[in-house]
Amino acid sequence: MLNIFLTLSFLVSVIAFLFALYLYLWVRKHKVENKEIERISLLIKKGADTFIKREYKLLAAFELAVFILILIFFPQPVWKGSISGNVLTAFAYILGSIFSALAGKIGILVATLSNGRCAEGAKKGLKDAFLIGFRGGAVMGLLVVGCCLFGVALVLLLTNDTGVLLGFSFGASSLALFAKAGGGIFTKSADVAADLTGKVELGIAEDDPRNPAVIADNVGDNVGDVAGMGADLFDSNVAAMTSALVIASSLSGSVAAMEMVFCYALLGLLASILGIAAARVGKDGNPTRALNSSTYVTTAIFLILTAAATYFVEGFSWNIWLSSATGLIVGLIIGLTTDYFTDDTKPVVRKVAHASASGAAFTILSGTSYGFVSCLPAMAGIAVSSLISYQLCAPLGEGYAIFGIAMAAVGMLSIVGMIISNDAYGPIVDNARGLAEMGGLGEETIRIADELDSAGNTVKAVTKGFSIGAAGLTVISLLGAFMSETNAALAEAGKPLITGFDIMNPTVFFGLLVGAAIPALFSAMLILGVDKNAQRMVEEIHRQFSTIPGLKEGNAQPEYSQCIDIAAKGALKELIPAGLMTIITTLLVGFIAGPLAIGGFLVGNIVSGLLLALFMSNAGGLWDNSKKYIESGNEGGKGSDAHKAAVIGDTVGDPYKDTAGPSINTQITVVSLVASLASALFASFSLFG
Amino acid sequence: MLNIFLTLSFLVSVIAFLFALYLYLWVRKHKVENKEIERISLLIKKGADTFIKREYKLLAAFELAVFILILIFFPQPVWKGSISGNVLTAFAYILGSIFSALAGKIGILVATLSNGRCAEGAKKGLKDAFLIGFRGGAVMGLLVVGCCLFGVALVLLLTNDTGVLLGFSFGASSLALFAKAGGGIFTKSADVAADLTGKVELGIAEDDPRNPAVIADNVGDNVGDVAGMGADLFDSNVAAMTSALVIASSLSGSVAAMEMVFCYALLGLLASILGIAAARVGKDGNPTRALNSSTYVTTAIFLILTAAATYFVEGFSWNIWLSSATGLIVGLIIGLTTDYFTDDTKPVVRKVAHASASGAAFTILSGTSYGFVSCLPAMAGIAVSSLISYQLCAPLGEGYAIFGIAMAAVGMLSIVGMIISNDAYGPIVDNARGLAEMGGLGEETIRIADELDSAGNTVKAVTKGFSIGAAGLTVISLLGAFMSETNAALAEAGKPLITGFDIMNPTVFFGLLVGAAIPALFSAMLILGVDKNAQRMVEEIHRQFSTIPGLKEGNAQPEYSQCIDIAAKGALKELIPAGLMTIITTLLVGFIAGPLAIGGFLVGNIVSGLLLALFMSNAGGLWDNSKKYIESGNEGGKGSDAHKAAVIGDTVGDPYKDTAGPSINTQITVVSLVASLASALFASFSLFG
Repeated sequence: MLNIFLTLSFLVSVIAFLFALYLYLWVRKHKVENKEIERISLLIKKGADTFIKREYKLLAAFELAVFILILIFFPQPVWKGSISGNVLTAFAYILGSIFSALAGKIGILVATLSNGRCAEGAKKGLKDAFLIGFRGGAVMGLLVVGCCLFGVALVLLLTNDTGVLLGFSFGASSLALFAKAGGGIFTKSADVAADLTGKVELGIAEDDPRNPAVIADNVGDNVGDVAGMGADLFDSNVAAMTSALVIASSLSGSVAAMEMVFCYALLGLLASILGIAAARVGKDGNPTRALNSSTYVTTAIFLILTAAATYFVEGFSWNIWLSSATGLIVGLIIGLTTDYFTDDTKPVVRKVAHASASGAAFTILSGTSYGFVSCLPAMAGIAVSSLISYQLCAPLGEGYAIFGIAMAAVGMLSIVGMIISNDAYGPIVDNARGLAEMGGLGEETIRIADELDSAGNTVKAVTKGFSIGAAGLTVISLLGAFMSETNAALAEAGKPLITGFDIMNPTVFFGLLVGAAIPALFSAMLILGVDKNAQRMVEEIHRQFSTIPGLKEGNAQPEYSQCIDIAAKGALKELIPAGLMTIITTLLVGFIAGPLAIGGFLVGNIVSGLLLALFMSNAGGLWDNSKKYIESGNEGGKGSDAHKAAVIGDTVGDPYKDTAGPSINTQITVVSLVASLASALFASFSLFG
Repeated sequence: MLNIFLTLSFLVSVIAFLFALYLYLWVRKHKVENKEIERISLLIKKGADTFIKREYKLLAAFELAVFILILIFFPQPVWKGSISGNVLTAFAYILGSIFSALAGKIGILVATLSNGRCAEGAKKGLKDAFLIGFRGGAVMGLLVVGCCLFGVALVLLLTNDTGVLLGFSFGASSLALFAKAGGGIFTKSADVAADLTGKVELGIAEDDPRNPAVIADNVGDNVGDVAGMGADLFDSNVAAMTSALVIASSLSGSVAAMEMVFCYALLGLLASILGIAAARVGKDGNPTRALNSSTYVTTAIFLILTAAATYFVEGFSWNIWLSSATGLIVGLIIGLTTDYFTDDTKPVVRKVAHASASGAAFTILSGTSYGFVSCLPAMAGIAVSSLISYQLCAPLGEGYAIFGIAMAAVGMLSIVGMIISNDAYGPIVDNARGLAEMGGLGEETIRIADELDSAGNTVKAVTKGFSIGAAGLTVISLLGAFMSETNAALAEAGKPLITGFDIMNPTVFFGLLVGAAIPALFSAMLILGVDKNAQRMVEEIHRQFSTIPGLKEGNAQPEYSQCIDIAAKGALKELIPAGLMTIITTLLVGFIAGPLAIGGFLVGNIVSGLLLALFMSNAGGLWDNSKKYIESGNEGGKGSDAHKAAVIGDTVGDPYKDTAGPSINTQITVVSLVASLASALFASFSLFG
């Protein structure tokens, strides 16, 4: 019976791929007539390719090293048993990375293809431009979710071993770490350097083509926001399915449970396909409403389809449907509270804008404060939904309670195809706006592009809240997966099993405190990385302005590729220590203090990671929109002291919201997966465990 | 046998009181000759009295309400048993507040007495001025620790019930919340308003007497830093002794264990007395070294005395001595790592100063990053010391493991008398520096006062790290106290006992997530409170400058008392919602989800509280010292762009390090004590527990 759902999963994935192909061709048939836009689009595409090539090269070396390590050590050291598990896990690891890389690569291709066309479309009006931007993003959304479902089903079909899926998931996480954190450093160092030299030193517009960093900045939008975000959500989605399947496989009714996982995932993808196909700007021409209503439509379709499946398929439980629905609805609520803190029609953004009139210190203090406040509703939401799903599913039998939480995560991520489409829409229309300016398409076109862009910023807040919430639930279920993996290893070693992680146990508490410090350290390393890299680029820009004659006057071309090169090289260089730090501390804690300490470590990591991720994403969004609110003529408007203060807030918020904040998700997943993969080793070899 | 140690505790407390009296008289016999200094000293003293009077009035109302609540509900609702426990707890609660209030009140008296004398002393040279500042602070240190030891011994002698001590400790915490958070809002709103109007708008010096907020600013140093810090450490110290005694009373060898608690506490006070008596500025005239070396001397004396006691007294265990020593040494190490991040001779401060040259956004980003980095060593230190003490003491018998952690906290806090002396020295010499400027004592005197002030800032970092570390260990042992209280209540109600708080239990996890969000919300409320209150004061200053003729020219006196009034009223008004929020959420979580959720709630609170407290204290200290480093002529010196950026960093850091950061300690303790006091209620009445 499981095979039916695997087959259906392949089928829906293929439908998603075909629909993505259709949308790709639809976008491509729009033509770019403006020569300047065509030229710059090409530069952006080339720049993105440069980064991707570099990133994938570095990643290949990293993957090879991990591949060998897995072959030797994970899940069992070769000298302790058969090697087949290690070989399968190692190949699954590679496969996970390849699937994610593929989705990212194609997504960037489409995004860089759509931006110019979207700008041209804006000449004809809002409707066309919106659809080009949205459908370009949707290609990414469909591919990411399709690859996820296809890959997970494929690995399970071939190996029939949920443990191997941890390898697949770890592959996805490795890539997400490179794509999200590396892309985040890339995009923000380019952005900051472009702002510092362009707006501040030279007094030229944001997208002025004389600035050598301007193309790097546009490339950054694509590699950080499109590819990075796609890899991040691919990772979360795979991790949610993996942990649900690992837990499901140890249940008494394991077949039905595993069927449910695939059924919910494939119906979620189907719902996203329908939601994407239905998206249009209505008569009122409000793109924000169009994006949001397609999210609600997708949610409704998903709930109806899964209810039908629960009704018709034998062994499917209503309690699990309710858990999943709870997860999805809480995801929406978290998104809406995020929106409350970052939307400029709501009081918080206006208060921060008003505080800016007293100086930059007040911009920072008030933004930081509201960022902290914004953590409570989201964390309480995650807490309540995990409690509800647990209570709903506990009566179903042993192990079902944690499975309920895993299914809440699957539910929250079910509409991820839609979420990614909305999210990838943002950087496409952002780029389109820049291109419209650089190509001189006229004020009306720029105004339309602006409107599209502002809608992108608004829905971004919602989707970010969503993805952090989903990551929260996923890692809770990964904790369950870690425990079942550890107990399997302990049982094999003839040692007493772990019954839980008691906070009063000092080994657990030790892990908890150390684990809580890691996301803070990780974020700090990324932010400092952005700082350093931006400084390097500023030096390069100064060099170009002083050595290229006629550049300032616009008679000569800047060497864009130099800046792209610096951004790419530096991003990867700054990323590696942060990535290694998280993996090494996990292994250190495990080998020193054993599985109990790792349990605490994972929880400390989740709790402080969620807190910091929410804080940084929301404070960053808040500062960004406060600045925009002032720029639209409030508190003295552009050029006022309040505006200068708000620009400082925005610059602080940039690496918060686009580098560190969203990378913490990935960091948590990486740590959880490393712990699960190494659980057998920790169970056998630990100093004080 | 316990009575011997109680008697000795009274004896050593009285010695401390007498020594404090001697130091007070010694400080008082120095005369203030400068009329201006005398006049301003008096204004500061009056201002501090105004705040203290207001605060104590509000506190009295609050205390009365809590007194009645305790009488009716805690530890057992009156309708469920005898009322005697409630009566004792209620009176112990009042006593705890009175003792803390007394220590704070006298401390302020001495501090406001010492500042003018210290300024005058600086005319004669470093040695005298140092001793006046240090001994003024020492009066506070001796009184706080003496009151703590005396009070705890008294309550135990009278009631012979460690449970009643929770009431005493809660009394101390309530006061600390008012004193620390209220004082923190007071001092920073005055500071920020004075800076904004004086330095920024009018371009007059920091301590210019024309500024109506300048006296409020000086008052703030006393009410926030002296009284607030004293109340905070009184609270931590009482909480550490209380939790150790509550746990000790449930052990098999309870008498010896309780004896140890008193023995260690009284020897710590004795060691502090000796260390204070020995403190002198050496021939090299380095006040930082003098302060640090007296800390080391006290540490050594304490370790030797407790080793001797362990050797001679029957039933004292070396394992516990080692735990206690571990706590103390880890405390020192945490202090030193804090120093590394905030001392301007070390690289971090210089890097942040250098980053400021690129603009304020980089000041904020780099300071935030290093603040995050600084959390790891301290959290790992707390984690390691709790793990070591647990492992050391677990072999002694059931319950001893947690007792070991409690004794590590007692050890870390043993030299708190010395710590407070060093810490109170800071605001005294800071005030003295201001007075020297206002009194026109000449450049050489100001230079000496500056040197004393800078030493105060340096050791402040160490003592802050120390007090956060101690709070961390104390709340871990309070968690143990909460569990034993809950189990006593559960046993009485005939319900199954709690064996621990398993993170995999969703009720615990629910509490964990919600608890982790509370310190963030609490800090945000305090920071926003400072913001709002500073805005009110800025308005008042503007009013005075526009309505008092001749004020700007120095021909008229500003109305200092108006600003003091605004600071005091506003501080208490802003504090109340934050304080109530922490108490109400604790009760809500307990009554909704029961004792297991509260266990998670406390741990979430500790973990995120420690993280945020360390981050804010260290980032704030870092920005403060970066600004000073630039002011001493680096990165362009005063007036440069780097300096302007550093001033923004410092303004952001002020409420971080002096309002929110140190108040989080108290918030954690309040939450832990409320939970312990209400444990019987949670055990009987909870919706889903």
